[in-house]
Amino acid sequence: MRTAVYPGSFDPPTLGHLNIIRRAAAIFDELVVCVMRNGAKECCLFTCEERAELLRESTAGLSNVRVDTHTGLLTDYVRESGSPVVIRGLRAVTDFEYEFQMAAVNRKLNPEMETVFMFAGEEFAFLSSSAVRELARFKSSLRDFVPAPVERAVREKISALEAEQSR
Amino acid sequence: MRTAVYPGSFDPPTLGHLNIIRRAAAIFDELVVCVMRNGAKECCLFTCEERAELLRESTAGLSNVRVDTHTGLLTDYVRESGSPVVIRGLRAVTDFEYEFQMAAVNRKLNPEMETVFMFAGEEFAFLSSSAVRELARFKSSLRDFVPAPVERAVREKISALEAEQSR
Amino acid sequence: MRTAVYPGSFDPPTLGHLNIIRRAAAIFDELVVCVMRNGAKECCLFTCEERAELLRESTAGLSNVRVDTHTGLLTDYVRESGSPVVIRGLRAVTDFEYEFQMAAVNRKLNPEMETVFMFAGEEFAFLSSSAVRELARFKSSLRDFVPAPVERAVREKISALEAEQSR
Amino acid sequence: MRTAVYPGSFDPPTLGHLNIIRRAAAIFDELVVCVMRNGAKECCLFTCEERAELLRESTAGLSNVRVDTHTGLLTDYVRESGSPVVIRGLRAVTDFEYEFQMAAVNRKLNPEMETVFMFAGEEFAFLSSSAVRELARFKSSLRDFVPAPVERAVREKISALEAEQSR
Amino acid sequence: MRTAVYPGSFDPPTLGHLNIIRRAAAIFDELVVCVMRNGAKECCLFTCEERAELLRESTAGLSNVRVDTHTGLLTDYVRESGSPVVIRGLRAVTDFEYEFQMAAVNRKLNPEMETVFMFAGEEFAFLSSSAVRELARFKSSLRDFVPAPVERAVREKISALEAEQSR
Amino acid sequence: MRTAVYPGSFDPPTLGHLNIIRRAAAIFDELVVCVMRNGAKECCLFTCEERAELLRESTAGLSNVRVDTHTGLLTDYVRESGSPVVIRGLRAVTDFEYEFQMAAVNRKLNPEMETVFMFAGEEFAFLSSSAVRELARFKSSLRDFVPAPVERAVREKISALEAEQSR
Repeated sequence: MRTAVYPGSFDPPTLGHLNIIRRAAAIFDELVVCVMRNGAKECCLFTCEERAELLRESTAGLSNVRVDTHTGLLTDYVRESGSPVVIRGLRAVTDFEYEFQMAAVNRKLNPEMETVFMFAGEEFAFLSSSAVRELARFKSSLRDFVPAPVERAVREKISALEAEQSR
Repeated sequence: MRTAVYPGSFDPPTLGHLNIIRRAAAIFDELVVCVMRNGAKECCLFTCEERAELLRESTAGLSNVRVDTHTGLLTDYVRESGSPVVIRGLRAVTDFEYEFQMAAVNRKLNPEMETVFMFAGEEFAFLSSSAVRELARFKSSLRDFVPAPVERAVREKISALEAEQSR
Repeated sequence: MRTAVYPGSFDPPTLGHLNIIRRAAAIFDELVVCVMRNGAKECCLFTCEERAELLRESTAGLSNVRVDTHTGLLTDYVRESGSPVVIRGLRAVTDFEYEFQMAAVNRKLNPEMETVFMFAGEEFAFLSSSAVRELARFKSSLRDFVPAPVERAVREKISALEAEQSR
Repeated sequence: MRTAVYPGSFDPPTLGHLNIIRRAAAIFDELVVCVMRNGAKECCLFTCEERAELLRESTAGLSNVRVDTHTGLLTDYVRESGSPVVIRGLRAVTDFEYEFQMAAVNRKLNPEMETVFMFAGEEFAFLSSSAVRELARFKSSLRDFVPAPVERAVREKISALEAEQSR
Repeated sequence: MRTAVYPGSFDPPTLGHLNIIRRAAAIFDELVVCVMRNGAKECCLFTCEERAELLRESTAGLSNVRVDTHTGLLTDYVRESGSPVVIRGLRAVTDFEYEFQMAAVNRKLNPEMETVFMFAGEEFAFLSSSAVRELARFKSSLRDFVPAPVERAVREKISALEAEQSR
Repeated sequence: MRTAVYPGSFDPPTLGHLNIIRRAAAIFDELVVCVMRNGAKECCLFTCEERAELLRESTAGLSNVRVDTHTGLLTDYVRESGSPVVIRGLRAVTDFEYEFQMAAVNRKLNPEMETVFMFAGEEFAFLSSSAVRELARFKSSLRDFVPAPVERAVREKISALEAEQSR
């Protein structure tokens, strides 16, 4: 069975992530979407478990997709899981260079790991989790950017954060 | 009347910004320079009002330029102002990709909004507000980088910040 | 009256060009689409006059769009026409650098000329005349890539070229 | 069975191509390396059949790799072969943009086709068939750049071309 | 005597830095490696003095290499040292643009200063101090990425930081 | 004595080339400007000897600059000349990638050869020999783009070519 891992911070998952997930699930036998909890980015909108839960809701219709979480290096997760294929989405040149560097570092750390890239569909090429977080802070509609369960959760989270701040 | 909006954080305004303002004011009937107060970048050298004031001083000679401020999304400002044309300066490839993403997000949020780009003159292609802030911290001359009223204000602001820190 | 010039080789015009034309015509009082006949690229699918005719058919519904042709430097055309504003579409980083260089050269030759850029809509970001010519040679459908009158003309042109070659 | 297609002009095949072939063959059940005969690039060093033969020699040790040739559009080949997954190597930013455009065009022509990308190993990131052809013309050693059977064939081809020219 | 300055933050020094140091020391009579203590980046893993010490240990075998530290602008250091040639390493397009901007700013501030660039060897093109710090936090081996004395120092520093945090 | 080689096709030499030559001559003891005659590009405006002569005229005031010509690979020239340092100018990202590839290929062919890069001054960043040739064909003034002796020679060459064609 050909299993692939799609790692990311997914804070929150966007329609761009879902586009990659659907297409990757069609070309491998199993796809594990893995929410990475790695330090610097942990301070974000959702906890690692909340993001995994949002991904589970958003991929409920895809029977060969599984969601997992991991703390630490991706190469360790890949070694333990026994699935050497890693999927990454590419949107732009700046992505390209960062991903090129990560793929090279990861191959040094684990020569069996293999990263393959899929281009974000052109209708999602502009979309990022950080843009979604910025729009959310200004109460913009997120309908064109995230799956429905994520839009609901983002709105609740922002309200909760504001309630907390105004206390 | 063809009005265009030139939004930015302008912290502080540079000669590169002024170059774009002059050239954009020549090809539209009216140009509104709009200082955006949007969260993450607010923690910077000048307050939103101070930056607007510096822009007013620096553009005093341009009769069809107006300065405004806005809190929130650019698409909201554009909708309220009734001027669907937005001007952005482009210096480099990294600018290009960020601007491409913002223009696409903004067109989703407001399909009538139209972003047009002008290249920074090649003598300003290297210039950014963050470089100016860094130079200012080390007491470098800013004469080649910012308009005269801005140079004065930056020097006073840096002195005030240092006086505060040494207290 | 604010007139802008949109120059290009348009061999053939694509839906990406039409997207720029529609959007530029909405923000200037008049738009002149100018087919440039400049040497190296002349050896292509359509003659300069054929391309102008295809643009006229494809922009028939846009009352403030005019089509013209020019042999020689763009700066000369701009000087003679009295319309200092030039529109260029941007799709990608390689475009960006070429356009940056051309805008700088043109400003040296004619300091009053001003180039403004519009991003191709993301659904056209991948589209180029040379890709269309390549698809045409292999008898691919062009429906998603060029206006209807252009698709017809490309098909006839390719058939004529093949008839000529097989003679 | 998961089959992937690795198309290219391979004129000649380089160690960079072989690196991609080995790694792609490890993550799919079958890999078809397909030499594309598509017009403009046909005028090169080796004929389409010679390139296929060189690839067969160079991949003799890889039991799940098959070599094929095709005249026409990649999307047609993919449709006929029933293998919707296409592999492409990425070396640099200019590659990235060209590939992004091709993947978007191909998805328009055949929505089931899926392109995945692998980065050339960093030791091959600089390597291209055109660089190899240029080195060959100056009688440089090609040992670090192409598989042994290709080096031999290139040397013979260049000698034959020179003999022909000096006649 | 032709002296060149190689400035950087070196937090920590990597094998990529050492590669540039060795190659630059071979083409100039003397090379001064200068650890810059400039504000924002000071909050990192090692103090300025520790980094200088690590560089001294790592370059012990290179007789024409000297290590220095500086607080403030590079142009001031260059003016005081009387060595107008500055060396910078280039790895990727994002580096390229940042370096282009810094070189232009520095030439404005000190027209006699001259920056020359060397490409990181392709086996180090992916390597950065920030990647090393991230790997170190997860206890990854650093052997392929930093000189031996640096690996030891990083491990001790991380342990000390953790001991402090768990107190 | 520190000698460096500045190779190129120089068809024709531009003010951008002269800018690099002056700056490189200031940081090395001797600079050899080497006109490369390498195949594909030979079909251009000036012969290899004419270009060398134009460079000699344009660099007459620089006592440590020498002009040479070479047929074949740069690595061979560098080996024979005993000067392992090669200078290249960088203007833009597309330059960057091509140069990165060439430097890597050259290091494979001759590990002692070392390429260092200088950024074109920002006022020349847009300038290329091919742009100059295009402007020349349309009788544009070249004063801002090439040294005076080159402008004269280009004008005579273009007139001679036209006289020949109209015969």
